[in-house]
Formats: sequence, C-alpha cells, structure tokens
Amino acid sequence: MKKFINSVDTVLTESLDGFAAAHADILVLGDEHKFIRRRALKPGKVALISGGGSGHEPLHGGFVGHGMLDAACPGQVFTSPTPDQMLAAVEAVDTGAGCLFIVKNYEGDVMNFDMAAEMADGVLQVVTNDDVAVENSSYTTGRRGVAGTLVVEKIVGAAADQGMALPDLKALGDRVNAATRSMGVALTSGTVPAAGKPTFEIGDGEMEFGVGIHGEPGRRRDKLKSADAIAEEVCAAIAGDFGDRAKGPALLFVNGFGGTPSMELYLMYNSARRVFEKQGVTVVRSLVGSYVTSLDMAGCSITLTMLDDETSALWDAPVHTAALRWGM
Amino acid sequence: MKKFINSVDTVLTESLDGFAAAHADILVLGDEHKFIRRRALKPGKVALISGGGSGHEPLHGGFVGHGMLDAACPGQVFTSPTPDQMLAAVEAVDTGAGCLFIVKNYEGDVMNFDMAAEMADGVLQVVTNDDVAVENSSYTTGRRGVAGTLVVEKIVGAAADQGMALPDLKALGDRVNAATRSMGVALTSGTVPAAGKPTFEIGDGEMEFGVGIHGEPGRRRDKLKSADAIAEEVCAAIAGDFGDRAKGPALLFVNGFGGTPSMELYLMYNSARRVFEKQGVTVVRSLVGSYVTSLDMAGCSITLTMLDDETSALWDAPVHTAALRWGM
Repeated sequence: MKKFINSVDTVLTESLDGFAAAHADILVLGDEHKFIRRRALKPGKVALISGGGSGHEPLHGGFVGHGMLDAACPGQVFTSPTPDQMLAAVEAVDTGAGCLFIVKNYEGDVMNFDMAAEMADGVLQVVTNDDVAVENSSYTTGRRGVAGTLVVEKIVGAAADQGMALPDLKALGDRVNAATRSMGVALTSGTVPAAGKPTFEIGDGEMEFGVGIHGEPGRRRDKLKSADAIAEEVCAAIAGDFGDRAKGPALLFVNGFGGTPSMELYLMYNSARRVFEKQGVTVVRSLVGSYVTSLDMAGCSITLTMLDDETSALWDAPVHTAALRWGM
Repeated sequence: MKKFINSVDTVLTESLDGFAAAHADILVLGDEHKFIRRRALKPGKVALISGGGSGHEPLHGGFVGHGMLDAACPGQVFTSPTPDQMLAAVEAVDTGAGCLFIVKNYEGDVMNFDMAAEMADGVLQVVTNDDVAVENSSYTTGRRGVAGTLVVEKIVGAAADQGMALPDLKALGDRVNAATRSMGVALTSGTVPAAGKPTFEIGDGEMEFGVGIHGEPGRRRDKLKSADAIAEEVCAAIAGDFGDRAKGPALLFVNGFGGTPSMELYLMYNSARRVFEKQGVTVVRSLVGSYVTSLDMAGCSITLTMLDDETSALWDAPVHTAALRWGM
C-alpha cells in the first residue's frame, strides 16, 4: 500500500484535522470528529445534513458551507457514521426550522440516519439512488447513491439558503434525485488503508463497467475500451433509463474516482457530451473533477441531471464550500 | 497503460476540446489548439501569458480567466510549446499595454518563450524556479519551476487586473518567485500516453524524494516513509533554503500530482503545517488540491510562499478560472 499516512488508525482524524485547519474560514470540526459544520449558521434556515463513510472526499465535508450543507458526518473509511454523530450534528446546526438529511442509498447509512431521524424532532430525509448500473449491490437494496448526490446537495442547499420550508426541500430533493442518473467505470481498485491491499483484483487490460464507489462489482468485467466506446455505453445506460425524459437542458457531470487526472476527465467529458447531444440532450451546465471519489481508484463516473428553470437557477446560486465555490 | 483515451495522437486535442466546451463561459480555444485565451479581454490591462508541456493540468489552461492568465499555450505532453504558439497568443490577447510571459525554468520552455519574446514587441518575462530539490536536472539548468508557478500566476494576475504596469508586474513576479520554495515526492510514476509505460521504475516499498513534475529524479530513492517523516524532510529542505526568511505569515500549498486523492493531501497538509509552525512560520493562507500535476503520478509537493500585506491582498483578490475561483 502506497499512501501518505502515519497509521491506519489515525488516517481519518488526521485528514479531518488538516481539512478543518485549511478551511477554518468556512467550517469547524465537532467534538471527537463527529461532524464538520458551517462556521456561520443562518438562523431560521432549514439545516441540511449529510454524511456517510469516508474515502469519497471531498464528498461530503467539502460541500459544507454557504449555499450547500450545514453539517456532514464522516464515518470511518467506507463505514456508515453512527446515529450519535447525526444527533450531535442536528444539535449543533438546527436553528429551529428543522433538518433535512441527505443520505446515499446504502443499508448501513439508511439504517443509521433513520435511527437518528426518529430520535430527533423535525427531520425529513432524501435518499439518493442515482446509479443505474445495477438494481441491488453489496451493501445496497435498490440502486446505489453515487455522484448525483452532489447535485442534490447543491440544488437543495441553494433552495434552503433562499428560505424554502422543510417539506418543500424534501420534495425538491426527491425531484432532483429522480432527474439524475449516473454510472461509473473503474480501471484500477482503490485501497482501504485498514485493509492494506486493493479492494478487488483487476488485470492490466481490464476494466469494470458499472463499478460502485466502494469498488462494488458493476455490470461486468471487460477488456479496456476506448474513451468513446466507454462513453457510448455509459451514456446509453443513462439515457435508456431516462427514456423519453433524456431530451432538453441538462447538467453533465464527469466525476473522477481519485486516481484519474483531469486531462483524462476532460477527454471523457468531450466524448460523453458528444454522445448525449446526438440524442437530444442540450448540455447547459458542466462539472468536471474528482468530487465523489473512491480513495485512489482510477476511473470515472458520468452523471446527467435533467434541468428546468428552477433547478438551473438553484445550481447557479452562490456557493462557498471547500470543494465547490462560485458567485461569492 | 490504463487511461481514458481514444488514440495517443489525439489525447491533447480531445482533452482541450472538452475543457473549452466545459468552460465556454470563461475561455475560448485558439486556432489549431495553439492557445487557450480568456473570452472577455480587459482593454488596457497588461496581458499575462503562460504555457508549457501538457500533462500538468489544470496548470496552465485552468488558470486562464479573470484575475489570472489571459492566455496559456499547451505543448504536447511534457514538450515545450513552440514560439508560434506564444506569438499567436500575444496577437490574440495583447490590448496595447504589453505582455508578461510566466515561464517555468526548463530549457525548452525558456528557449521558445525567449524566441517569441524577441519576435514580439513589449514583452517581459518572469521565469519560475521554486523547486529546492536539485540545482540542475534533466531538461533544466538551475532549479526547476514547479507548483509555486501557480502562486506567481495568481498574485501577478491580480496585480495586472488592478492596472499595474508591465515593469512593475515583472518585478512583482520575480519577488513572489523569490519568496516561494517547493519540493515534491513521488510514490508511483506517471505514464506518458505516447510512451505507453511508466516514466520510471519504482518498487512497491519505495518513494522518490525531490521528484520533478516530469518524473525527473530528485535527491534520492528511499524506502516509503510515514507522512510525518516525509513532511519533516520536505519542510526542512524548504525552510533551510529560505534561511532566516522562513518566519512569519505564509501561504502553505499542498499539491497533488494527479494520482493521489484529497484525503491524503489534507493529511500531508496537517503534517506539513505542524512542522512549519514549530519553526516560526504562521500559515495564514492555504491551498490543498491537485493543481500542478504529472499525469497520473501518485505523490505530492509542498510549497511555501512567504507573504506580506501586498501579496496577501493580491492572493485574496477575486479570481474566476476553471480551476481557481473565489470572490466572484
């Protein structure tokens, strides 16, 4: 295992300490590293809280700040945060207007956020499940929540900042999730520090189509294809799942998994954009970068969110977080 | 070689096409992919132009836009751009106030930017050489220009936007370069697409201390060390080279080389910050991310820039580029 670490037991806390020190203008760490929260809360605003296993950075801590999340609860690497983390976060950031949990669809996450939601008052939840690769998966009943979660957090975060009430935010989050589809491919496996070896074996000439963000198996193992062939297949899976809805204005988001440099991500974006536009999608917003990662896995995912006037404007609204920033 | 590509001959142009399409609000591609330039020029402002071999993305194209570069000339991967690229860029972005070239210290880059500067009128140059690892290197007489180049481009870019004249910008650039030191370490080698195999061999338990951004050898090959031990050695090299000047306010920039995820970069930032602050440095600005890369190389560099009131304010000034954005 080749990583910048001191000890597998302190990877997470040391990384969080560095993250909080580097972005002290935006956020603060909760006691015992239970959560990351916005430094400046906005009284009367519904609080948005997300979280999940670590190893997907900058998701979710990198999206804490003005116009996006109020708090994020980091579990150990690829391990759900515990309900007491979410309860501590609620206590720290709920200013009286209630909380919305944004949860990726994994059994552990769903169970632990559910427990916290039952113990706290005034909490609603949005569960993301944008991954079209497989119906059920390791750790998941139903579809996995992957990179599209960023899009839900950004759009709902902007609406919360503008004063939208809790039930409307929940409806908006569900609507954005339903307008979002993703699929990923892996060229190499990431390595969980505590495991010390790659999560899965993969040959020099192989790739995994439909991989999950924990290295879960996807649709199949195949020979390494060209960027255009990969884009054709991934975009066809996404567009096919959308059916007639894959027409008109959309956000195209090409996401790196941690070990793939931006040169390749922009090349994939170029291929994917061409495929989608041939099918009647108009790419009106774009995001390219490593935002929802799987440790040091080489690979990428493609996410398409169909936009309308409201969601376009919310995407464009000012945001000031460690990993996404514009308009301020 | 495991990369998202269609053909080694079109990697660069396809990636640039994707980049320009994703950021069409900020920039446009010149004819024949000779340069990337700001979409909206600012008449009367000195034009800042940089460039160099590709493979270091987002450097330099990702820094084209308001408050930073007016144009960037991308050479082939790890190959200097040609003088006609710089001349075409000058013609496209010089609005009459002259041009400043910002050039990393590599023999090919220096020669080709020099030729272009002689053929154009009203051009001055800043050559960056922030890498303390070795005095001379493959492709370099004197020290290499590495991640600190971003800091020079940001600070000089802000001053140009505020109307500073060409000779003063050159003096400022030289001053920021002289206040900046970097050193990098590699855990793996990157792979040049046209070569098809890693640039250098490195064992499972080995790392390269002082590596260059093209995979050039550094000070020595060593066994893989802990993050703290790496930070101690790199920071000592930087602080030792600064001598008495490594006291007081500074920007700490931990830069990923392309294959290292942000979780590890923040952990390294945490280690490096502790080391520098013990030595009397006060970290008042921070940047953590993969900004000056070496294709898919796993590794990172640490850059320290000693700041004063003027350079701090210029660092904070609004910037709107594909890869750095704040204040607007």
